[in-house]
Amino acid sequence: MHQKLSYLKSSVQHLEESPTLRINQQSKELAAQGKHIYKLGLGQSPFPVPDSVVNTLRLYAAEKDYLHVQGLPALRDAVANFHRRKDGVDIVADNVLIGPGSKELLFLLQVVFDGPILIPSPSWVSYLPQAKILGNEIHVIHTSAKNKYRIQPKDLIQFCNHHKSKKPYFLILNYPGNPDGLTYTAEELMALTEVCRTHHIYVLSDEIYGQLHHLGMHASIAKFYPEGTIISSGLSKWCGAGGWRLGCFSFPQELKWLLQPMAAVASETYTSVSAPIQYAAVTAFKGSSEIEHYLSHARRILQNLGQKTTDILNTGGIKVNKPEGGFYLWLDFEQHSEKLSKRNINTSTQLCETLLQKCGIAILPGADFNRPPQELTARLSYVDFDGATALTASESIPLHEPLPELFVERYCANVLEAALALTNWLK
Amino acid sequence: MHQKLSYLKSSVQHLEESPTLRINQQSKELAAQGKHIYKLGLGQSPFPVPDSVVNTLRLYAAEKDYLHVQGLPALRDAVANFHRRKDGVDIVADNVLIGPGSKELLFLLQVVFDGPILIPSPSWVSYLPQAKILGNEIHVIHTSAKNKYRIQPKDLIQFCNHHKSKKPYFLILNYPGNPDGLTYTAEELMALTEVCRTHHIYVLSDEIYGQLHHLGMHASIAKFYPEGTIISSGLSKWCGAGGWRLGCFSFPQELKWLLQPMAAVASETYTSVSAPIQYAAVTAFKGSSEIEHYLSHARRILQNLGQKTTDILNTGGIKVNKPEGGFYLWLDFEQHSEKLSKRNINTSTQLCETLLQKCGIAILPGADFNRPPQELTARLSYVDFDGATALTASESIPLHEPLPELFVERYCANVLEAALALTNWLK
Repeated sequence: MHQKLSYLKSSVQHLEESPTLRINQQSKELAAQGKHIYKLGLGQSPFPVPDSVVNTLRLYAAEKDYLHVQGLPALRDAVANFHRRKDGVDIVADNVLIGPGSKELLFLLQVVFDGPILIPSPSWVSYLPQAKILGNEIHVIHTSAKNKYRIQPKDLIQFCNHHKSKKPYFLILNYPGNPDGLTYTAEELMALTEVCRTHHIYVLSDEIYGQLHHLGMHASIAKFYPEGTIISSGLSKWCGAGGWRLGCFSFPQELKWLLQPMAAVASETYTSVSAPIQYAAVTAFKGSSEIEHYLSHARRILQNLGQKTTDILNTGGIKVNKPEGGFYLWLDFEQHSEKLSKRNINTSTQLCETLLQKCGIAILPGADFNRPPQELTARLSYVDFDGATALTASESIPLHEPLPELFVERYCANVLEAALALTNWLK
Repeated sequence: MHQKLSYLKSSVQHLEESPTLRINQQSKELAAQGKHIYKLGLGQSPFPVPDSVVNTLRLYAAEKDYLHVQGLPALRDAVANFHRRKDGVDIVADNVLIGPGSKELLFLLQVVFDGPILIPSPSWVSYLPQAKILGNEIHVIHTSAKNKYRIQPKDLIQFCNHHKSKKPYFLILNYPGNPDGLTYTAEELMALTEVCRTHHIYVLSDEIYGQLHHLGMHASIAKFYPEGTIISSGLSKWCGAGGWRLGCFSFPQELKWLLQPMAAVASETYTSVSAPIQYAAVTAFKGSSEIEHYLSHARRILQNLGQKTTDILNTGGIKVNKPEGGFYLWLDFEQHSEKLSKRNINTSTQLCETLLQKCGIAILPGADFNRPPQELTARLSYVDFDGATALTASESIPLHEPLPELFVERYCANVLEAALALTNWLK
């Protein structure tokens, strides 16, 4: 096997499976052994795909033609309209690229773009490994708890002054955020725009959780910085269809020179996204009162659950910011580092392995999100509940009313139980 | 735009869309202008996806979980059984990798493998561009018309003696072949196996057309060289589901060291193949009497049409070998080069562009298949007919009987008409 390693490119010799998928596998294996696992590792939407979207898939199940490499024209049109309608940005169908997940599209961007890539930390697990596979120049800009993990204009300016580049930079921003559930205000996005314009920084704006802003108030940086922003979205999060694999990038005309080679690489790799899935996605992106209804209920449940989980954790001495969107919490155990060290827990990975083994709680270590290994942080996905049942229950309560007391206790018991178990273990 | 080019990696600065997809687009545009186009460019199966497979997709339309990165266990099991049953090779489910098309899997192989890659010429359009995108070492071994474009053991030996490598070689073999419709006999595969064993050559055996061997007699090199062969297959050709995007690689235990990093890269790119599509694929790979029936009829139609098209072309002075599988013919116009030169046709690309403009015949130039630009060759896909209607008509004629005279003239008229138009134009 040692000799075989030398037959692999050095960039992949020590590559491991994506941590989010790994925790999913580990949890499944422990569950198969009869252990009860709180599945707060994988970031999969708990909600089913809306009926109208599933029905469209059934209707177009026999579609078998290879579709256009950029995507079905009707779907690109629906995506462009979606961003015009939702985000107030002027995208045209010709400038939309459909891929088998936005992760694959981000990889294509990294295949073609030749300049420094900037990612904040903490940030999503796959940005960095993709750059490593491709041998790209990537820089991690650390954010701090005191700034709610928001990247600051001064951080960006400082970085650019220290790392002069003849080529433009690409900054990857994800908001509402994985792994923190936090987002940027319009003012913060405007301030970042100014720095980006001055320092020739393009933005890959990963807005896959945009429609899961808990108040339905997502704002895109593309509204302020249209000429320099690619918006990334897809079906995986707001439409509950992670396993369907459909993502999309929307380009401004000024960045079309990136779309063209990406489509060329797509034509030599995945070719086009599965045809029946694309037809179904048209229904999702076109939107309808049914889908808006679905989103409103999903947001109300996530908001309630996020707030209550945060309350339990904060009360138990774990620092967490109240989430603003999506379904993640970023847990900070730093104030317990001495106590944990006595239990031989000195890294976030040790922390999460202990939690999985001792409490059956699957969460992901901060190290997977580009934080220093010794920093005792972790990501919790509050998705371990039956989203279909919770949605149905929520639908019987008018949207202008709050959810009744004990609603999430009843329908999302596992998540709250896990949060309690976690704080008890910490004591 | 010139400046922007410098922001792209050199490997993709001049990359164009895959030629098969490009011809598809061009044909559509001309057709939209009202011109009748014989669509013999894109290699898409003319047959519908079998009903049982489409119905399974409908049944599993609501499946939305992220599946295992290597593929749904039931599907990997079905694929392993498929190869055991069809090819007599001992594949286990753990050693199967499912991807969004075998093209994507081949790309992953090229992402991880660090050694010289050998491809015969003519060969499929995407092998070479993938290597270029990744900066891999790739060598084209020319085959000749007199050997029916089969790679000869002595060619391989000669190559290895001239290009010594400390790392193993990877030979990509595609049979029944794109672009030639020809295959290897068991004896030829055994002879190649011997050379591969001696010279440390692994084989990526692209058998995507295996089930479309016109006599149902496909033999895999994995039967003779199990320890060194990866079998590539998928739904695109024999199951008529090109646009669904599902391919699979089956590894022997000895090459598992390649599967693992490929799965790791998959987890950082496409994640897993669309869940509903994977469930449907289980039905396809499990097989059934319905599917065998479908295959038998598809083969009988393709064989008849392939033979008759060849007859017309040969009679008209175009050299073509009688096809043995799949739905391609490799046309050789070399003996007309002087005459064509007088019409300002000196390359295969000029030849095909003229045919598209003057006769509305869309076929792909030899240059796209790694042949020298001046060689006047081209690939014709005999797929421009309504496969559903032809299948239904064939089903009323017992399989042990030959198709009646004028069957393909009636159900596949476009293809024969195009062949005639081509020979008339040549005169």
